[in-house]
Order: sequence, then C-alpha cells, then structure tokens
Amino acid sequence: MSGTTRALPPGIDDARFERALEAFEAIVGAPNVCRGGASLDPYLDPFVPLADAHAFAPSAAILPASVEEIRAILRVANETRMPLWTVSTGRNFAYGGAAPRLPGSVVLDLQRMNRILEVDERLAWARVEPGVSYFDLHAHLREQHVRLWVDPPAAGWGSVIGNTLERGFGTTAYGDHAAAQCGMEVVLANGDVVRTGMGAIETGTAWHLYKSGYGPSFDALFTQSNYGVVTKMGLWLMPAPPAFVIGEIQVEREDDLGVLVDTLRVLQLDGTIAQHAVIEGVIRRAASLAPRSRWYEGDGPMPEAAVAAMQRELGVGRWNLHYALYGAPEVIDAQRRIVERAFAAVPGARFTAQRYEEGDEPKGGGDRNLAGIPTMSAFRMLDWRGGEGAHVDFSPLCPADGRDALRQYALVKARAAEYGFDYYGGFTAAGRCLHHVFAAIFARERRADAARAGDLLRALMSDAGAAGYGVYRSHLLYMDYAAVQYGFNDGALLRLAQTVKDALDAQGVLSPGKQGIWPAAWRAQRGYT
Amino acid sequence: MSGTTRALPPGIDDARFERALEAFEAIVGAPNVCRGGASLDPYLDPFVPLADAHAFAPSAAILPASVEEIRAILRVANETRMPLWTVSTGRNFAYGGAAPRLPGSVVLDLQRMNRILEVDERLAWARVEPGVSYFDLHAHLREQHVRLWVDPPAAGWGSVIGNTLERGFGTTAYGDHAAAQCGMEVVLANGDVVRTGMGAIETGTAWHLYKSGYGPSFDALFTQSNYGVVTKMGLWLMPAPPAFVIGEIQVEREDDLGVLVDTLRVLQLDGTIAQHAVIEGVIRRAASLAPRSRWYEGDGPMPEAAVAAMQRELGVGRWNLHYALYGAPEVIDAQRRIVERAFAAVPGARFTAQRYEEGDEPKGGGDRNLAGIPTMSAFRMLDWRGGEGAHVDFSPLCPADGRDALRQYALVKARAAEYGFDYYGGFTAAGRCLHHVFAAIFARERRADAARAGDLLRALMSDAGAAGYGVYRSHLLYMDYAAVQYGFNDGALLRLAQTVKDALDAQGVLSPGKQGIWPAAWRAQRGYT
Repeated sequence: MSGTTRALPPGIDDARFERALEAFEAIVGAPNVCRGGASLDPYLDPFVPLADAHAFAPSAAILPASVEEIRAILRVANETRMPLWTVSTGRNFAYGGAAPRLPGSVVLDLQRMNRILEVDERLAWARVEPGVSYFDLHAHLREQHVRLWVDPPAAGWGSVIGNTLERGFGTTAYGDHAAAQCGMEVVLANGDVVRTGMGAIETGTAWHLYKSGYGPSFDALFTQSNYGVVTKMGLWLMPAPPAFVIGEIQVEREDDLGVLVDTLRVLQLDGTIAQHAVIEGVIRRAASLAPRSRWYEGDGPMPEAAVAAMQRELGVGRWNLHYALYGAPEVIDAQRRIVERAFAAVPGARFTAQRYEEGDEPKGGGDRNLAGIPTMSAFRMLDWRGGEGAHVDFSPLCPADGRDALRQYALVKARAAEYGFDYYGGFTAAGRCLHHVFAAIFARERRADAARAGDLLRALMSDAGAAGYGVYRSHLLYMDYAAVQYGFNDGALLRLAQTVKDALDAQGVLSPGKQGIWPAAWRAQRGYT
Repeated sequence: MSGTTRALPPGIDDARFERALEAFEAIVGAPNVCRGGASLDPYLDPFVPLADAHAFAPSAAILPASVEEIRAILRVANETRMPLWTVSTGRNFAYGGAAPRLPGSVVLDLQRMNRILEVDERLAWARVEPGVSYFDLHAHLREQHVRLWVDPPAAGWGSVIGNTLERGFGTTAYGDHAAAQCGMEVVLANGDVVRTGMGAIETGTAWHLYKSGYGPSFDALFTQSNYGVVTKMGLWLMPAPPAFVIGEIQVEREDDLGVLVDTLRVLQLDGTIAQHAVIEGVIRRAASLAPRSRWYEGDGPMPEAAVAAMQRELGVGRWNLHYALYGAPEVIDAQRRIVERAFAAVPGARFTAQRYEEGDEPKGGGDRNLAGIPTMSAFRMLDWRGGEGAHVDFSPLCPADGRDALRQYALVKARAAEYGFDYYGGFTAAGRCLHHVFAAIFARERRADAARAGDLLRALMSDAGAAGYGVYRSHLLYMDYAAVQYGFNDGALLRLAQTVKDALDAQGVLSPGKQGIWPAAWRAQRGYT
C-alpha cells in the first residue's frame, strides 16, 4: 500500500502546504519529514475496516526530537492552521494505528523521543518519553538489574505513554494503566510547557509520587484527548514479588460465564485477586494452540459443533479464567486455596496453577504478561483465519455482573455471526467493571471482509448503546459515533470537551476529531453547531 | 462572633446586592437565605489564623435544595456578577471552614441536598449528594444491613463530597478518597448539567464502575477547583472484610522515624499493608490519653525533658505506627507475621495487635476509623492546650523516604518551636508518598496566638518551598502563596488553570480565588497580569 495521491487537509492548498512543510524541515531536518509515497505507509491504518485501504491517509509526517522542536512545529501549525495528529509511536493497531482521524492531517510522530529519563527503584517509578515501548522499558530494567516490573499490554511493542493515554490495560496488579500514571509534562497548542501535579514544584522530588498536586488535577484531561502533546510521563512500577502463582480455571458451558464473573468480582473486591484477571472465550483460548482450519474451513462463523469439538480436543474451557497472585509464598498459597474453593462452586470447573519464584519466566505468552514480561502474543489472533491477518476491536465497558457479561456476550456473538465473524473475545476484569474486547478478524487482502468488519462495528455500537453500554475506546471510523452515545443532557459532556478544546487550542491544530472532539474551526466546516 | 458589618463583595453596591438577594430568596425561599448577623456565624472560619476573627467573612449564604435551584442561582449570579463560594457542608475546619476566599462572597451551601441516592452492595458503591456526611452514610449502611464500609476521614461530620473534592483521606484500604471517587454530576457556571464518565450514557449502569469513560476524563478537574458545582458523586465502598487486624508499633527514638518510613514503604508497595497506615508523633499520640498540663504548663513548646517523661509515663512511642490488615483470617495472620518480622529490625520496637471479626467494633477513636466507623477523634487535639481549642494545619506532601520524612520533621519542629508551638503531627502513608500533617494548636480566644499560628504557616510554606516540598491543600489565607510554589515554567500550571477557568466561567462567579485560581475579572482588579 503506497504511492497514493497525497491527501491535503481540507481547505489547505498546495502552496500553504508546501510552505508549512519547508518550515517543518527547517525545524527537524528534511530526513525527519515524510512527504509521501512509501515513507508514509507506516502512517496508514494497517487494519482499516473499510473497502478503501487508504482511508484516513495523512499528508505527511514529522518526527521531532525534542520539546523545543515540538514548540517550533506548533508555531508553524498555528500560523498555517495545519492540523497535526499526534502519535507516540503509532502502534494503536485495531483502533487506527498511526493514521489521523482527519484525512490529510500531518502526523506528529514522537518515536524519536525515546529516552528512559529516570527510574527510581526504591520508590518504584519511571519517567519516560513517548517513544519508549514496553519492550524498551522492560529491557532497561533487566539490564540495570532493577527489581521492578512493567505491566505489559497485549502487544509489547506499544509506547508506554501512548498506551496509557489511550487507557490501555494489562494483567498484573498494575493493570490499570491510567491508575498507575503519575505526573506529566505537556506542551499545549500555544507552546506553553506545563508540568502537572507535584512536577510544578521546581526543585521537588515528588512529581511521580503523588498524583493530585495542588488545585485541579489535569493529567486525566490529557488522556484520550487532543488538548496537548504529552512529552514526559511518570508511571508507577510494580516491585518484583518474591513469588507468584499463575493459575487457570476452565469451565465447560457457555452460561458458566455468569457465575465466573460473579465469583471473580467478589475475590477482586475483597483483595484476594489483586490483578486484572482475564476470562478468555474458547476461540481466543484455542487460537494460541491451533489454527481454525483444523476444525472448520467455512467462511461464516464456526458452527457450534465445530466449536464443541475444538473445545474437547484441545482440552480447553468454554471460558478460561487466567489469574495471578503476587507476594510472599505463605500469603499467596493461602490465597490460592481461597480462589480454588470459591470457583469449586462451578460444576465441572478444572484448575491448574503453578508457583514461581522471583526471576522465573513462564512459557506461554499470556502467562509471561502476567509475570511482567512484554510479548507480542496478542498477534497470534492474526493467524486464526489465515491470510494476512487483521482485526478491529469492539470494546464495550461491562459492569462486573454475570448478567451483564452474559448479555453482552449474547449480543456480540449473535451480531458477529450475522456478519460472518466468530466470537473471538474475552473479558479483562478490573474489580467493578470488565473490559469486554471482541476482535473482528479478517484477512486484509479481502477488502469486502474489511468493510464488513467496519459495518459490524457500527452495528455493535448501536446495539450496545441501545442496551445502555458504551465503548471505552474506538477506531477512528466511529470516534464521532461513540462520542454521541455519551449523550446525557443533549451532549453536555461533549459540549464541555469542546469548550475546553477551544480554550486550549484556538486554531484547532491538535488532532482534530480525536474521540469526537472537533475544534471550533472544524465544527463549522463539518456543519456542527 | 456575630453582628459585624456585612462585607459586600468588592465592586458590588448595596442596590445590586439587594437585587441579587431578593432574586435568591425568590428561588430558595427567604428562610434559606442568611442575610447577616448571627445566621452568618456558621460561615465564618472558626479557626482563622489571624488577629481578626472575622476575616474572610461572607456577605450572605444561600441554601438551595435542588439542581434546578442551583441553575437559577447561577443565572442570577451571572447577571449580577455576584461571587459565590460553594461548600458542601462547610466542615473544612483548619483550612477555612465554610468561609470564602474572597470576603463578601455569597456562600452557596449545599447541605440541604443530603440524599443518599443509591447504594449497590454487589458492586460496592454509593451515589450521594453534597450534604451527606460520613456519619450519615455509615448510619444508612448499618440501618440497611449493607455489608460495606465507609472510609472515615479524621472528623466524621464532614461531607463525603466535600472531603473528596478537597482530596481528604482516611486510613482503611480505601483511604485515598480521590482514587475511590467514580463519576460525578456537575453544574457548570453557565447552568449546563454534565454527567462525567459512563454517567453520560443515558440508560447506562456503569456510571460508578469505571472512572475514565470515553474521551478526556473530567472528574479530577473538579477537585480543589472552582470550575463547577458538584451535585452528585459516586464513591467506591469497601466490602466489609471477614476479619481484620489492627496493630500498633511503637519506636523509642526520634530518629527511628526514618527506618519506620522505609520499612513501611516496602510493605505497602508489595501489597502486605494495603491501607493508609498512620505514623503519629509522640505528642499527637499522647493527646488521646492525657492533657498537656500534666507535664508542662508553659507557653512555649514542651521541653524535651517533659516530652520524654510523658512518653515514658504513658508508655507510648516517640513514633507510633497504626496499621490494619483486612481479609481472610489465614491471610491476615500470615501478613501480620510478615509485618512484625519486618519492623523487628528496629531496636526496641514494641508490638501490639488485635484481630477482630466482621461486626466487631474497636474501642479507640483511631482504631474505630481503621474499622470503617466514623468518629470525631481528631477533635481531641483541641483539648491539648486548654481553652477553646483551635488549630490550623500545614500539610506538605512528603516522599515515602525516611530521609525526607526526617528532614520535614526537623524543619517543622524547629520552626514551630520558634513560634512557640509543639510539634503536634504525624504522617499518613500512601505507598509512594506520605501526607505529613502538622497542626498548630491554639486557644481561639487568644487572638495573638491565632495570628502567630498564621505567621508560622507562612514560614513553614516558605521553608518547604525552598526545600522542594509543596502542600497538598491550604488554608484560605495562603491559597495564593501555595499556588505560587507550583511555579515551574513561570507558573505554567496556574496559567493553564486560569485559561480553563475563564473558558468555563466567563463572569468569574464560582469561588473566585479558590486554590489561587482567580477568574479574569478578578485578576485584573487584583493587579495580576
């Protein structure tokens, strides 16, 4: 996918565009500006769920190396009203990759800013730049013999800052990345450099120790938003535990999801299970062991008989709960007994668990994530249906209540089947809520399938909205549609978001349209009030 | 304290004021408008650290009963440019009570909005209005036999919303009130009613289950701020544990604070101690047992010999660590052994601990708080020095590092002694940081002592700022001064706060000056740029 005609941003002619690009080159150097052609391929959405594989194409990309360069770029963008689309490294696969919401935007790619600025082993935090991936940070901690863990998201190549800002999550005790974030440096659209929380104390040492600071707290305002460019971030790291248990609990029947969720909720809320446990559906569990074609070669969703055969032959559950316990051996042994006692109430439940000591490395991808080791295990899904695999995700927030989980599962499974997709999904449990993630998997060379995946996403969001559920994140294609679902009082939340946007970015140059937030200039053009 | 001349807001004459008050009376009814005299006494700062006990006096107070009344009040305030000062119930003692930062403001007192709107025992949350106190919520849970705990702050009469918005804290596993907050309803200055996070899904049930929602997160923006009037809030409640241990560890020497902090940090970060443990200095610990006059009657700080005698005779430690463990008996017994083993490294450490079952009620005030039972135990400090006791607090954030704790302690103790005050203080430990709280205690009828306490506060803030420490909260008197300490990049954080303020409250009617944030109109009057 390359060589398309360059799409300029709406309302910007060639002359203005050229002027801006020359100014950008003067700031970052010509090799750090991608002007089109193959150099822009990494900024196309690799999994775009539309027939047109070049939808959401940017016009160019710039790769600054410093805060000062970002400030200079913002001056040019404001002068020329050039829309920028900020990415940390652009690994946001399944939600749009590095591609911009507004076609023709210039991607502001921060991957060259990739320093691990500080790690404090005693107080267990790190300060990183946007280009630092989970792999990078993990490797650094290993090399320096620092006894701290990262909390890996599904794909370890992602940026720590990027994932956190998009509110990604992992599966250790630090699985809630937004909760483990503490302190930021942000460049505002006007070039002002703000340090949040305790970071505003000039000679202070508590930037990454206390989140709130004094006065209003701003960090969360810069997540899933287009209010600023985050250039540094603090995150809390988990002290390597002396021992840990990784366990799996398999249940037989589809309906067992309900009791699984209800039992897990009690154990999470009482503190026995302190991490983000994962409940994998049978197909997602099976995909780590064998390809779909072993049981079914057809185009539509796998028939129930094939699923049942697969479940039986692979010896997996219809639902498979993965959990971990971290701590002193005597404590986690006691906790393991409590966990197994609780789930023994599910008829036919099967238990496996293994205890590790600090430094041990589990074998399987998911288990490695539970042990703080980043992997690319999430990508195994791409082999499930063959071809050059791609997927887009539907991720509604689900109350941690068995009835809601069953309802969402039934809804998604039925609608997915209607569009010809397997239910490839699961739930990551975060106490009072579950992150339900369903992946529509397709072969990317089959553009009709891609478009059908996009249609399915919209149908699912509509279904979910009607049932009172909202997504926590969205692909570019449905960012506006998702925002509209959050419609209380005629869209008061989006009005507030727009008011803040206009105050902080008068020219509307930062990531127009992100999460449905359009700056005033673009709202007018798009016929919004 | 009553009968003072009514202070009007700057720039507002009698006629405009009278017009506004008549409009307010038409909205809430005359009995719900306090027009001066004794009816305004509850809105004076009871502990004002100035010679003038009537500093920060409001001109009037209004008590609305509903969101609609608040919206109508805001219309009048915008028309007349009348500054309002919002309080939930106004129990913010030691930081200004219900009194406004800008003298002459009209207090918007929400105490009549005191419904507990919903409690969900399964998913462990409550939705409350601003007038609901910790006592109210606790009593409601008891009456309804709901097996959930509140996390009491030092004084149980405080508003749940008020305390959370000011970032108060408690001592159970839910001690970080900001972290346990989830979802708000906010009335903006323009009357728009916003529900944050998942609350914007009209028929949804996840408002109080997932904090972030979709797009930028706004909740934290409304804490310690003047950006809106919070009318409903969700908070997470702790499931009543089957058993709990409450323990105390006493150490002998002043310098033992360092090792106490370092040992505690490790145990909190590895999850063994999951609550906000408290380290009380000898004087604060002693104040629960006997009055100061038993050892010393003098005016200045207690001499070291008197402190040592008191410590010996009462059998308390120089520092006294209070901790709790919650969970299954076999787990907390193992954790207790780990805790005592860790602190046994401190020479002379003394241990006591008691295990309780669900439903048991410890006797002492602090222990009751650790068991989720609100008390007024914090007020015992008012008897320490005799007279009609009052105090103002200095509360710098401290890294959870023994060296920092010792440094802050030495700094505060020396400066307090210079101004004639005992070191009455302690640290509440929250993992990577400590809330250091020092109370300057005085008899409120001695106005010179009050003024000296105010002077001491300023000196301490200056000392702390020079050492790289910042306060997490401030009395009205030093809100501006505290904000200036957060001065990185020539005050970029405050500039951001002001930009948002002006966008959300163009007339500047909501709590001008709160946490140092003055709206544009008042910045000009005060000679700010």
